[in-house]
Amino acid sequence: MTITITAFERSPDGGQGLARDTRVRWALEELGQPYKVRLVTFEGLKQPAHLALHPFCQIPTYEEGNLVLFETGAIVLHIAERHAGLLPHHANARARAIAWLFAALNTVELPIVELSNVMLLERDMPWYAERLPLVEGRVRDRLTQLSSRLGSAEWIDGPFSAGDLMMVSVLLRARSSGILDEFPNLAAYVARGEARPAYKRAFAAQLAVNAGAVPS
Amino acid sequence: MTITITAFERSPDGGQGLARDTRVRWALEELGQPYKVRLVTFEGLKQPAHLALHPFCQIPTYEEGNLVLFETGAIVLHIAERHAGLLPHHANARARAIAWLFAALNTVELPIVELSNVMLLERDMPWYAERLPLVEGRVRDRLTQLSSRLGSAEWIDGPFSAGDLMMVSVLLRARSSGILDEFPNLAAYVARGEARPAYKRAFAAQLAVNAGAVPS
Repeated sequence: MTITITAFERSPDGGQGLARDTRVRWALEELGQPYKVRLVTFEGLKQPAHLALHPFCQIPTYEEGNLVLFETGAIVLHIAERHAGLLPHHANARARAIAWLFAALNTVELPIVELSNVMLLERDMPWYAERLPLVEGRVRDRLTQLSSRLGSAEWIDGPFSAGDLMMVSVLLRARSSGILDEFPNLAAYVARGEARPAYKRAFAAQLAVNAGAVPS
Repeated sequence: MTITITAFERSPDGGQGLARDTRVRWALEELGQPYKVRLVTFEGLKQPAHLALHPFCQIPTYEEGNLVLFETGAIVLHIAERHAGLLPHHANARARAIAWLFAALNTVELPIVELSNVMLLERDMPWYAERLPLVEGRVRDRLTQLSSRLGSAEWIDGPFSAGDLMMVSVLLRARSSGILDEFPNLAAYVARGEARPAYKRAFAAQLAVNAGAVPS
């Protein structure tokens, strides 16, 4: 069955790969699954047709036959469960890879999104200069813990998994703040993720959309 | 095999059921699984023994034989996969229940935690009064979308699932702000969750700890 995902017609990041469709594209590329992309405008996100697919008016969505999914974490987990390559076979190792998937989205991404909100939505507020370091501190606290756990390992918990895919994707969102580079082992971990052929294909595909080329 | 989870020796909420062990207790109660609780002090969260279980120094953790898990979402999903009752049998319905589990944690909880941070950590800051309504607006935007999707349904997507368990748990954290009660259908949804016998047992168990009684 054909897999169709949605992505921004014009991504707010101009093709830096930070929009969440890149995460799903990456997973599909790791698993060798072809997919189609339907582009959605900002106006289109709020229309009934898209709202039926995504109750929170976001991208990406995932359609395959009768199945409609939303939430990047759920989509990545779904495809990782159906095709070998992103989850270990052993039950305990599999459960731990899924724990890291949740950790990326619920524990590590939370202060990073809070920081993005400050930088994007509160830049003109009178408290910006005073509050920014406070939120940066929250990101730094989390990355200190993550850096300590990763140590000198190649991936976070055994071979590359859906947990690494999501953690690298989340960390990429902290790079522009400069905080990621304060942690050399995390910066190197992210670079290893970006060096994977599947990531490169996913990145190129989203960039092609944003450069105005024909989407994949 | 015996299941052991960790919880605060003294919860910051004084037993209101908002600490995340309540979510795991609730899932275990729904599935009829007995469990033990090991209490951890705030100081203990940072010690090597706990850090080995949870890289981000939080509760709850989950131990069962050789398996150690962290992240509430991953723990709830793990036990829901192993015992019938919190995930539908049909593959597509199962995937959608998991999508709602992720939506609760990554999309709905995010502005709610941001609001908690304002109320707990920024109350004495000069910007508090001006910034509070801005963050409340972010919570309100999400709950407007969720309320619209729930409509008059009993649960969010078919029968009660792990997705509802997590969404109700997340919404409970917004109640003290007063915003939940602006959405009568969401308030009623949360009340239906709280009325479930399994929730009541989980709530009573965490309250017993915080009232100084012997933990379950």
